Amino acid sequence: MASDADFMARALELAERGRGFVTPNPRVGAVLVRNGLIVAEGWHKVFGGPHAEVECLRDAEARGVAVAGAAMYVTLEPCNHFGKTPPCSRTLLESGVSRVVIGCLDPNPVAGGGLDLLRQGGLDVTIGVLEQECRDAIADFMIYKTQGRPAVTLKLAMTLDGRIASRTGDSGWVSCEASRRRVHALRASVQAVMVGGGTLRADNPRLTHRLEPDHALAGNPQPLAVVVTRRLPAADAPLALVRERPEALVILTGAAQAASAAGKGLAKLGVRLYGLPEAPDGSLALLPGLTRLREEAGVYTILCEGGGGLAGTLVGQGLADELALFYAPKVLADDRARAGFSGLAVPCMADAAGFRFCAVTRVGEDILATLRPLAVAGQLASQHP
Amino acid sequence: MASDADFMARALELAERGRGFVTPNPRVGAVLVRNGLIVAEGWHKVFGGPHAEVECLRDAEARGVAVAGAAMYVTLEPCNHFGKTPPCSRTLLESGVSRVVIGCLDPNPVAGGGLDLLRQGGLDVTIGVLEQECRDAIADFMIYKTQGRPAVTLKLAMTLDGRIASRTGDSGWVSCEASRRRVHALRASVQAVMVGGGTLRADNPRLTHRLEPDHALAGNPQPLAVVVTRRLPAADAPLALVRERPEALVILTGAAQAASAAGKGLAKLGVRLYGLPEAPDGSLALLPGLTRLREEAGVYTILCEGGGGLAGTLVGQGLADELALFYAPKVLADDRARAGFSGLAVPCMADAAGFRFCAVTRVGEDILATLRPLAVAGQLASQHP
Repeated sequence: MASDADFMARALELAERGRGFVTPNPRVGAVLVRNGLIVAEGWHKVFGGPHAEVECLRDAEARGVAVAGAAMYVTLEPCNHFGKTPPCSRTLLESGVSRVVIGCLDPNPVAGGGLDLLRQGGLDVTIGVLEQECRDAIADFMIYKTQGRPAVTLKLAMTLDGRIASRTGDSGWVSCEASRRRVHALRASVQAVMVGGGTLRADNPRLTHRLEPDHALAGNPQPLAVVVTRRLPAADAPLALVRERPEALVILTGAAQAASAAGKGLAKLGVRLYGLPEAPDGSLALLPGLTRLREEAGVYTILCEGGGGLAGTLVGQGLADELALFYAPKVLADDRARAGFSGLAVPCMADAAGFRFCAVTRVGEDILATLRPLAVAGQLASQHP
Repeated sequence: MASDADFMARALELAERGRGFVTPNPRVGAVLVRNGLIVAEGWHKVFGGPHAEVECLRDAEARGVAVAGAAMYVTLEPCNHFGKTPPCSRTLLESGVSRVVIGCLDPNPVAGGGLDLLRQGGLDVTIGVLEQECRDAIADFMIYKTQGRPAVTLKLAMTLDGRIASRTGDSGWVSCEASRRRVHALRASVQAVMVGGGTLRADNPRLTHRLEPDHALAGNPQPLAVVVTRRLPAADAPLALVRERPEALVILTGAAQAASAAGKGLAKLGVRLYGLPEAPDGSLALLPGLTRLREEAGVYTILCEGGGGLAGTLVGQGLADELALFYAPKVLADDRARAGFSGLAVPCMADAAGFRFCAVTRVGEDILATLRPLAVAGQLASQHP
């Protein structure tokens, strides 16, 4: 016998289909349940398009399924405002559903309040089914909505012992082909891909997504390239990012470097340079740079692909909102191999940055572990009425 | 509709129940299937006791289930010899089952041959269902049977970035309580627990299992303690292993150290010292020590709990037969933190020691990844007739 959690789990799967298509809207999924069976499904498919609840009701109509008396499961509280679409709470009331099961409440004060309307309308409303998972599904949305900066996913491909390259810098390849394909899909679902200066110099990357033409995300625009470095490349450096698409390159650097002659030479090519202050430990303070990416460059979600120093900085500054760690089944056991996370000084194990596992899946020969921080800055408290 | 693989997966689950009880026999599970449903189950429960097939037939009898015409799924080829019990192949022929599905063939030439007898008897025999998984279930058995040394499980509790302690050596605690309980069950299922000298000096461990009294393995004998070190402790050192149970302590050390005055002092207390030759890279060559543990101390399976240097040595010498890696959801990002694997020099990523993931499960807040080496020394080739 399927439970509320089973139905919500399916709604979460559907929500995930919107990844890369609905930003800056949140990903939302919905299912319609009658007599213990899912009879219709919907998800928010594209930014500005119908919400998940409306998609689900349309699916029911297309299938000739009666809606009256059925239960709607939706990962996020139905909206209560006229945005690009009419309020879903009103649509649900008029649809005839008798029960609404909500994963988590909407933290957006403008859109929220749908719950009250549903209850006033006499519907049976349940809140908080798979709440943590439903919150995780909108975690990126909450960050760029409430903190004015992009949500940061930190992706690393590591050996079992946490290394991203050998002592000679050899990193080809840590992860398997299936994992590398997965990374291109991640790139295609964000507005910017970020690396540190060491990775720029060592790998001369393009940071573009290169997906098979039949991949659903293949038509997405190429992400901006963001490089964090104090050592600015020369304007005539043989770097793909500088030569091939300088207008798509943003360099986060020290304030002095941004104003230097080298900086001006890059700016003349169309490269954007954001000068950053220093953090107490001497690293660049990334938050102002991220905020500018959000405000000036339309970056809602950003994928950081290392290297170790930048990964350590993000963790140390509390800016790694999601970890996507590919572990390849190999061991270097070499203390001089390059660490996936480096640069911090942490005397006690109790002071390690804390995360929680959200999912662990096999990807080809590798595993992909997804984690989120234990302490989420600015997270709204649960507010079950 | 359940498939052959589903039934074999259940037989594998049952086989696993024998862990810690059947050594030096292999773990084996069996299910009886009639009309697509499992109607009886059995597994090898205790060394010297009935084999899985017999347990399964007894279960069928106890349940009043007819055996004639049913199918028996068994993870390992039924034996064909009179050992502590009569040959299972003969028992199966007489039982009336019409089909036997075998996970993998028996690599033991004395016990093998059951397959031929079953076929000669006219039974429908299928081989190789979940073969890799069934081979993995007897991998430890194959090692101590064919290589004359204990099978080595290397367990480490690491941060996401592969560290087992902070820069100050602080390791309390990396993993969660549920993981630590799991480790005690691992200790209770082996004949010896091994650590390096650094761990001995830093942690002063007992290396005993400490399980709740109602745990199935709580009554198992305490494992031997094996320490690998060139720096012998003094006979009056304040170490629990030396003071409390010297007769259960085996030290693998250099040949010179074993013959030294310090070595003789320890031997006088009852400590066993095995002098080892040097490997080409200057580390102790562990194989002769492991072989002596198998031959002189009855050690079939051994759990190594680090530290990093010993873990690196085991991997470098091709003696890590199974990795049991607990990853705690935390990041140190400190290059001076203690690595879970260390001591090797590997210039190219392609030269990293290769493994494959066998299982990944959640244990409390952590994950436990189990892996086996890609290249297994002495593994018998598949021999489907």
